[in-house]
Amino acid sequence: MLDRTDPEGAIAEAAARCSNWGRWGDGDVLGTVNFIDGAKRREAAALVRHGVPFSLSQRFDTDGPQKGWRRRTNPVHTMTDTGLDAVHGGQGFPHGFGGADDVIAMPLQCSTQWDGLGHIFDHGRAWNGRPADKVVTSAGDLVTGIEHLAAPVAGRGVLLDAGRVLGEDGELPDGFAITEEHLAATAEAHGVAVGRGDIVLVRTGQLTRARRDGWGDYAGGPAPGLSFTTAGWLHRTEIAAVATDTWGFEVRPNEFDHAFQPLHQVVIPHIGLLVGEMWDLDAFAAHCAGDGVYEFFLTAAPLPVTGAVGSPVNPVAIK
Amino acid sequence: MLDRTDPEGAIAEAAARCSNWGRWGDGDVLGTVNFIDGAKRREAAALVRHGVPFSLSQRFDTDGPQKGWRRRTNPVHTMTDTGLDAVHGGQGFPHGFGGADDVIAMPLQCSTQWDGLGHIFDHGRAWNGRPADKVVTSAGDLVTGIEHLAAPVAGRGVLLDAGRVLGEDGELPDGFAITEEHLAATAEAHGVAVGRGDIVLVRTGQLTRARRDGWGDYAGGPAPGLSFTTAGWLHRTEIAAVATDTWGFEVRPNEFDHAFQPLHQVVIPHIGLLVGEMWDLDAFAAHCAGDGVYEFFLTAAPLPVTGAVGSPVNPVAIK
Amino acid sequence: MLDRTDPEGAIAEAAARCSNWGRWGDGDVLGTVNFIDGAKRREAAALVRHGVPFSLSQRFDTDGPQKGWRRRTNPVHTMTDTGLDAVHGGQGFPHGFGGADDVIAMPLQCSTQWDGLGHIFDHGRAWNGRPADKVVTSAGDLVTGIEHLAAPVAGRGVLLDAGRVLGEDGELPDGFAITEEHLAATAEAHGVAVGRGDIVLVRTGQLTRARRDGWGDYAGGPAPGLSFTTAGWLHRTEIAAVATDTWGFEVRPNEFDHAFQPLHQVVIPHIGLLVGEMWDLDAFAAHCAGDGVYEFFLTAAPLPVTGAVGSPVNPVAIK
Amino acid sequence: MLDRTDPEGAIAEAAARCSNWGRWGDGDVLGTVNFIDGAKRREAAALVRHGVPFSLSQRFDTDGPQKGWRRRTNPVHTMTDTGLDAVHGGQGFPHGFGGADDVIAMPLQCSTQWDGLGHIFDHGRAWNGRPADKVVTSAGDLVTGIEHLAAPVAGRGVLLDAGRVLGEDGELPDGFAITEEHLAATAEAHGVAVGRGDIVLVRTGQLTRARRDGWGDYAGGPAPGLSFTTAGWLHRTEIAAVATDTWGFEVRPNEFDHAFQPLHQVVIPHIGLLVGEMWDLDAFAAHCAGDGVYEFFLTAAPLPVTGAVGSPVNPVAIK
Repeated sequence: MLDRTDPEGAIAEAAARCSNWGRWGDGDVLGTVNFIDGAKRREAAALVRHGVPFSLSQRFDTDGPQKGWRRRTNPVHTMTDTGLDAVHGGQGFPHGFGGADDVIAMPLQCSTQWDGLGHIFDHGRAWNGRPADKVVTSAGDLVTGIEHLAAPVAGRGVLLDAGRVLGEDGELPDGFAITEEHLAATAEAHGVAVGRGDIVLVRTGQLTRARRDGWGDYAGGPAPGLSFTTAGWLHRTEIAAVATDTWGFEVRPNEFDHAFQPLHQVVIPHIGLLVGEMWDLDAFAAHCAGDGVYEFFLTAAPLPVTGAVGSPVNPVAIK
Repeated sequence: MLDRTDPEGAIAEAAARCSNWGRWGDGDVLGTVNFIDGAKRREAAALVRHGVPFSLSQRFDTDGPQKGWRRRTNPVHTMTDTGLDAVHGGQGFPHGFGGADDVIAMPLQCSTQWDGLGHIFDHGRAWNGRPADKVVTSAGDLVTGIEHLAAPVAGRGVLLDAGRVLGEDGELPDGFAITEEHLAATAEAHGVAVGRGDIVLVRTGQLTRARRDGWGDYAGGPAPGLSFTTAGWLHRTEIAAVATDTWGFEVRPNEFDHAFQPLHQVVIPHIGLLVGEMWDLDAFAAHCAGDGVYEFFLTAAPLPVTGAVGSPVNPVAIK
Repeated sequence: MLDRTDPEGAIAEAAARCSNWGRWGDGDVLGTVNFIDGAKRREAAALVRHGVPFSLSQRFDTDGPQKGWRRRTNPVHTMTDTGLDAVHGGQGFPHGFGGADDVIAMPLQCSTQWDGLGHIFDHGRAWNGRPADKVVTSAGDLVTGIEHLAAPVAGRGVLLDAGRVLGEDGELPDGFAITEEHLAATAEAHGVAVGRGDIVLVRTGQLTRARRDGWGDYAGGPAPGLSFTTAGWLHRTEIAAVATDTWGFEVRPNEFDHAFQPLHQVVIPHIGLLVGEMWDLDAFAAHCAGDGVYEFFLTAAPLPVTGAVGSPVNPVAIK
Repeated sequence: MLDRTDPEGAIAEAAARCSNWGRWGDGDVLGTVNFIDGAKRREAAALVRHGVPFSLSQRFDTDGPQKGWRRRTNPVHTMTDTGLDAVHGGQGFPHGFGGADDVIAMPLQCSTQWDGLGHIFDHGRAWNGRPADKVVTSAGDLVTGIEHLAAPVAGRGVLLDAGRVLGEDGELPDGFAITEEHLAATAEAHGVAVGRGDIVLVRTGQLTRARRDGWGDYAGGPAPGLSFTTAGWLHRTEIAAVATDTWGFEVRPNEFDHAFQPLHQVVIPHIGLLVGEMWDLDAFAAHCAGDGVYEFFLTAAPLPVTGAVGSPVNPVAIK
């Protein structure tokens, strides 16, 4: 049982128990993505049976969940040239040529995303035990920037639709802490096994609810999510990544009296786990429920922004 | 032979000859990406023999080629929280938690990218014959926004390393117009065939040169690239997409006395072809030269920015 | 009396009655700012009796009223270098030099601002009768960009503290329509006259309320403000500008059944009036209430962004 | 004479000699702007003899000098609604209402600007001796943010047209170090005296040259400017601010073998001097040459971005 009054103790204990520091050498910049090897990708490619692709990304636009917390806004997309200019204005191009162009301003973690390894620290330590202040400065993440993950994030995906298996009408309520037992029961219900190098997608159903009822406090408010107690499972299974359809992947309110994302504090700096958030799993989960197949090929390559501590991502699952 | 004095006539002729308007129905928003079907993706997945992934994206940062033309800058990535703040400042989080966050402002076509179907018009007409002013307004591309391409761009990739086959030391000179014959000779040298639904990557070597000598006028200046005369080949082969390692995929200066990107004006609005630019093919091409294999599995999912006329992309090739 | 069912008729009537089209020539780009002449500025400078300055600007930061309507966010200010980097990081400068730098992304009308003459159109007509589509394209306002107002907006300011004179505890309730009679009564209570070339500031007290109670729907919701019926007064008095402490200067809900900012539609394109919004008049108004002096020297120079249709502004009143 | 090999020693000596630390109390956030008092502003207002205003700001647009150094770009101004949309598109407003809106992304020091007191540090010390890492974090300048200067920067301006007095055809060559003697000679030639609380504008003519010949290395390259040796004059005269028409106000290359902006390192953290850069003094200087009057009323209110270490500014001089 968790002692609700001692997050710091619980974090320290879990960190010590689950640490992967040094596992891939002092210079490692990939963390658990190291678990995805060539054999895994070949195995994953063999899961492409019909060639049907699914995007697991929300749309990037102003109709998103952000409300300004820590300067996080929704994306602002503006045009520098339009079809109206081409037809009715004067773009200055010859021979009937016309064009449209656009720009965007956005937080890198505003919508469907990967947390980079430099996103979260524990007592001033980043992934692999490095001092956080030497890793991430105003110039960005000098060591573990998301650009290092440009190539390798492609492999076997496994969907655990906890919302559908454990919830009512496909949704877990806010505050529902998904435990290791819940994850195992979901996998068993799906007839799928989770193993080394897998990218595990956990659907809670909260995004379904937000779509229906409005964003509300989706960005930081109460949410279903992984229990702090799953740290061991996340470590032991040797999965490469975990992603959910919620803002912060772990349950909120957190399971301590005064806490802020304690599971992040263990899994990112200590396990070196790649964490995905705000993924849109709904259409894909419906398809999986239909054909009963919960494993698939998945690519989820971040945008290689040099030194970024996170990245928007458009994950594509193919069955 | 092209009449250098009559780009408008040549464009009109090529457009009429190569048009795919109506081919996939009046409501089509995918263009040639329609050519990628399930069978193609299965065939492509079977090309994953070793499970080795390559990112074909440049890095997104201020050290890029943009110099301000039409308000295109290089990406500006800034931090809203850093490891320095976590260690030496006061982030206000409990139990030793620290974090870093970041934002970005950038043109959607500043680096490795896809041109959306709403990016280029011919005499006020967008893809499928739609009036450009009804398609792209200040609110973005209301019809063929890049979000429609979120899922399907995964299939068989073919690399045509024209720089290596036709050039000196792996590079074609600026102004070199790659013709249909050049493409055929390159494919033959590689022992690879190009067919329906393929994503064809043409390496010119210009990016290699820019890396060595500095960006110079990479963004809009002279460059090797596809000849205007390849429009027929691009249409006839029924490829799904073409991408190069240059700013604008077609040869520059263009092959007319007074012209601006005439091949774009044919292939995007009339063929509905997905065009990629500024891809980084160098490391991957070296690998292909090593193993002699020029076909592979490729995913290149755009960031689904609602209404965008282009998108940064991190294409991942897997062999 | 206004016919609540016919905003279009009322707008047409007021526009015809109050038009300044052609008054300053066909090429005019200043509108009513033309009323501020050298004599006016000399008269205004003579109002500097104590040399005490007041900023009438809100602070530009994420704690602002914007909630995303038409892509309007609050300003996002981020650092590219900090004191933490200077002390604990490695900025790379010699001899103990350290520095901090920053960037901003914001709508030009997100906080204390001037509406430019290209901000609002009436049936496709911009200020001075120009076709709106020839004036403001994706390249910005090609004719009446805010840069034309870089120099002249300095002169005599007059505060009409309607909130204090007409309201309860200094605040008018949301939906309160300030009429010509209210303005006259307020001026009389203050012992101040409004005349040609003046910059008139009308305080409603809504910002006071928003500060106390939270922003709520300050950005576009119900608000006290000028009645549509003041169009004649705004025209007849030949004032150079009007500014309020509300989001949109005119009363909301508007005084017609189905309408959107009808007074804007008259005063900007037809009168050519410079309109200020979201000014912070509270501290200054308290001072005026204290010394009973409601006229003063005012400079309110917009940031000369080329082609902008509005501008953030830090107005400074000096007594 | 300066020892070209010892910038650190020279800086330390000048800093000790010119320090204003503690002069206005431990909590001071204004620096030399404290020298502008009510009497000064009254005196300044009396200089408004004709009521003729001049903007001393460059235009904010993409045609600026920035080339990417430390992520500084030129402003990117984009429209979110245009006249084209109002006339030919569908904005969705009733009764013939149409509108245009815009956004901007820019470094706060990209064009005509004030350096805030938190912009430069000396050996980890900010203005008034504060530790730089406690003053400027990723959240901005927590102590001396530019918002503190929102009101007071209005007073007597003095133009010293060094380019016209000392240069050829009105321009000083790049690398020309303006000394105290040069400043005195210029003031004498103009018949104007510089004193406590003045805002001193020094025109070098470099901007004139950049306008004629292209920006070249205006942003950081060789430039005329104040000699390091003027630190004493800048301190002793008790001026409130100094501004030039160059990128960095001090001469470049700097007057030491290996140095970066050593005069900044003295005047901002130690003198607490407000420094303006990239001001456009050309049209105004021509007027001053015409009427022989080099003193005037000046307002130069920064945009009060909370926590900013600099600000774009549109200074307005009135004669």
